Amino acid sequence: MKTLQDLKPLVSYLQDVQHLSSAISMLHWDQETYMPPGAGRGRAEQLSALEGLAHDKSVGPEMERLLSKWVDLKSGQVKGEARDWAEEARALLREVWRDYNKATKLPSEFVRRFGKASSLSEQVWVEARKKSDFSLFAPHLKTMVALKKEEIGYIGYQASPYDALLDDYEPGMTVAKLVPLFASLKAQLAPLLEKIVHSPVQPKADFLHRAYPPEKQLAFGQQVLEAMGFDFNHGRQDLSAHPFTTSFHPTDVRITTRVEADDLLSSLFSSIHEGGHALYDQGLDPDLFGTPLGEALSLGIHESQSRLWENGVGRSKPFWKHFYPILQKTFSEGLTGVDPETFYAAVNRVRPSLIRVEADELTYNLHIMIRFEIERALIEENLPVEALPSLWNEKMRQYLGITPDSDADGVLQDIHWSGGAFGYFPTYTLGNLCGVQFLNQAKKERPDLEEEIAKGNFLPLKKWLNEKVHRWGRRYSSDDLIRRVTGESLNPDYFVRYLKEKFSPIYRLA
Amino acid sequence: MKTLQDLKPLVSYLQDVQHLSSAISMLHWDQETYMPPGAGRGRAEQLSALEGLAHDKSVGPEMERLLSKWVDLKSGQVKGEARDWAEEARALLREVWRDYNKATKLPSEFVRRFGKASSLSEQVWVEARKKSDFSLFAPHLKTMVALKKEEIGYIGYQASPYDALLDDYEPGMTVAKLVPLFASLKAQLAPLLEKIVHSPVQPKADFLHRAYPPEKQLAFGQQVLEAMGFDFNHGRQDLSAHPFTTSFHPTDVRITTRVEADDLLSSLFSSIHEGGHALYDQGLDPDLFGTPLGEALSLGIHESQSRLWENGVGRSKPFWKHFYPILQKTFSEGLTGVDPETFYAAVNRVRPSLIRVEADELTYNLHIMIRFEIERALIEENLPVEALPSLWNEKMRQYLGITPDSDADGVLQDIHWSGGAFGYFPTYTLGNLCGVQFLNQAKKERPDLEEEIAKGNFLPLKKWLNEKVHRWGRRYSSDDLIRRVTGESLNPDYFVRYLKEKFSPIYRLA
Repeated sequence: MKTLQDLKPLVSYLQDVQHLSSAISMLHWDQETYMPPGAGRGRAEQLSALEGLAHDKSVGPEMERLLSKWVDLKSGQVKGEARDWAEEARALLREVWRDYNKATKLPSEFVRRFGKASSLSEQVWVEARKKSDFSLFAPHLKTMVALKKEEIGYIGYQASPYDALLDDYEPGMTVAKLVPLFASLKAQLAPLLEKIVHSPVQPKADFLHRAYPPEKQLAFGQQVLEAMGFDFNHGRQDLSAHPFTTSFHPTDVRITTRVEADDLLSSLFSSIHEGGHALYDQGLDPDLFGTPLGEALSLGIHESQSRLWENGVGRSKPFWKHFYPILQKTFSEGLTGVDPETFYAAVNRVRPSLIRVEADELTYNLHIMIRFEIERALIEENLPVEALPSLWNEKMRQYLGITPDSDADGVLQDIHWSGGAFGYFPTYTLGNLCGVQFLNQAKKERPDLEEEIAKGNFLPLKKWLNEKVHRWGRRYSSDDLIRRVTGESLNPDYFVRYLKEKFSPIYRLA
Repeated sequence: MKTLQDLKPLVSYLQDVQHLSSAISMLHWDQETYMPPGAGRGRAEQLSALEGLAHDKSVGPEMERLLSKWVDLKSGQVKGEARDWAEEARALLREVWRDYNKATKLPSEFVRRFGKASSLSEQVWVEARKKSDFSLFAPHLKTMVALKKEEIGYIGYQASPYDALLDDYEPGMTVAKLVPLFASLKAQLAPLLEKIVHSPVQPKADFLHRAYPPEKQLAFGQQVLEAMGFDFNHGRQDLSAHPFTTSFHPTDVRITTRVEADDLLSSLFSSIHEGGHALYDQGLDPDLFGTPLGEALSLGIHESQSRLWENGVGRSKPFWKHFYPILQKTFSEGLTGVDPETFYAAVNRVRPSLIRVEADELTYNLHIMIRFEIERALIEENLPVEALPSLWNEKMRQYLGITPDSDADGVLQDIHWSGGAFGYFPTYTLGNLCGVQFLNQAKKERPDLEEEIAKGNFLPLKKWLNEKVHRWGRRYSSDDLIRRVTGESLNPDYFVRYLKEKFSPIYRLA
């Protein structure tokens, strides 16, 4: 395409910047996987130096020279002959400018100050969580909230200051859109949860916590990842304390998992979850690497992929029709005598619990709503951070009917706030909703999809997602993409219907 | 020190550049250890981009502004009040200018082109070596030779174009110095080898090639590394096809080894060798990180450390007095009935062999001379790369009296040329000579050294090396350092005497 040829100098520059960012990602990956314990201080300095350099490159004079040829730097308007270019090239310029414009709003000095504060805050959070002592963490959390408010001041906003934060993770998302969405969702989930909790049928799951050798767990997880189409020629799986996915290039996408000898499913579902993220990153167009069109669209869309695979597939009947016999054979010491129905019910057990990342498909979203409300109170209403532990516990009671007996299992459980990632949590629920909506559409277009999954053939689904979602990168907005793929905007009804259809037979609901 | 305070802006800038260079080192490390097989092309592009960026930073206007405050950029003369500073600060400026001056000679575009070509070439070499197919590798080797000649054109030279390459690895070294040194060494080694080969006493070593479980080999190697003082809190050991040491910071120094189930000593000696390198890197002053005073002096000095440990210690009587009983117990399946004298003789067996890295202490240097002559032919005489396999085999016959039966075990065995590292090999022999000269001095100053080693206490030697060699970084020239430590310049007589003293009893030479 002539237009992309014209953009070559800009694209080439963007690729250089992305290569640097990918090096930063590798330093983070290494820090979580193989870095020697005593190397932390040097690594922190290294990360800070490279992050400063990457920021300078994305707003520096060379960037401005290359971009201003096609875009008015003040307004973002595409100019000259670029106005007549194909949609793809214009989308590229639109998104490049979006990143540039946002980056220029943040003073270099602020970026550095933020980096130092968040690094320190994350370290203190680890300590505070270990000691279950919120008061240790409170001053750092206060700093992070203040820094985010300062950031909002630079970025600006229309209706709510929280919108400026949301936009970082889910471009275009606002409080005004989220509030009714979450309200409607809550109104439907709460009675469903009520019925489930009071059902006389309650699945057993004790057999999931017998002795399951870690190496065998990892080998089984790898088998599932291979079946999903995770490309081990262009990726790998390692161990880390907290599972994550990182990508240095579409040809080098890495996931991590953790494994415990008395938990059969935690490592497996983490592998499937991260594997879903990884399929997205491996499915991006390598020719567009370094440009926004070669990047994942948003955290919500990213999470739609991980949750689609983890829950929509990994907790489905067809999945276990294929994999349960293999699992049972592999782990006969723990699973002998556990019939497929019992196992399937255990995998889908719903019960209010304290820890978000271990929550079931239903209550998970209530955990998110709690965090969303607390974040808004911090950002919009200047709630003092000291009020958080009691507010957290109150909301846990209100939403889930349980109360943490320690801050470690309560307000201190998530890393996000320690690094200043306010506005991130809602994307998890957006991903849950969107994942089901995508899967629903895939089943409509490929009526044999579940049959194929039951045969262990996941590639039709993977290919459908590659084609419909992955390969477009940031070409469309989230809303546009969802409408292009499913014919309508994000609609929580699909998710609620999916839960009802799944849980009604398990819990014999009326 | 006031002077170092004055240098703070320059040092801080150098540290940022070094952090970037360390990220590049990590990308190389990852490429050899964990990178997914299909990620090579993207990685090559990434390395090229980052190398270009690092190069730009080391010669850019900010660098010039900071350095020109204290040094005349054209001549390298220290100027103004810096002339009166302490030797340490002036040494720092001298070496910073040396790097700067060399880097400015290379165009950015060349550095990028070189980075990309060498990364690809290294990957093809791996493949070519696996398939023992020189023709696969030849076009890449041709490119690397052409690139090095182009580089010589930028750098310039006095007597031989090869001097420009030597200087990269061993500053100040020239063909004019090496040729007589190697000639004299060869004149003394050849008759010694002749006597050894024809001795009626020939150590047995078949027991070294029984079945030795790789995990146990690695565990034993780790035990030896710990005894040497390798700090696993600030380093680690991984597996790779070709063992190497890399350092990202004095607090993060990594070595690799390879292990074969039918070879008891190859992995162990590679661990000791790389461990010797690593002790040097871990022994650099972290406060001087990023400056030349926090960097290793030269490859020759680096190799003196690895060879001192590998051979001077690892193949010595006192070492095995301590470790042989442990080894024998660990690998009783293969070593039962093998007495210490027999084992010691096997460890020091001299015999012409095909693979440099597995060669004994004596013939090793003949392998180096072969490579030195071939490199000079490529660089000084424009020998076509196609001629290499047969030239290699001819020289092997001439120097060692044997001929490789495959290119994998011949001309393709070393990684160096694939990355364009011509001029590197001679530093191995320089290291052999220098290592023995250092060890000789250490024994003179610490008469109990061997006794301590025989007790498994390696720390006096490690501390001596830390103090005498490691901590100085690039403060002195190689020749100055060797004279400071041993009282005279590099003198091959120590090495020859050491070999004669070791091999005479083993081979019962007259």
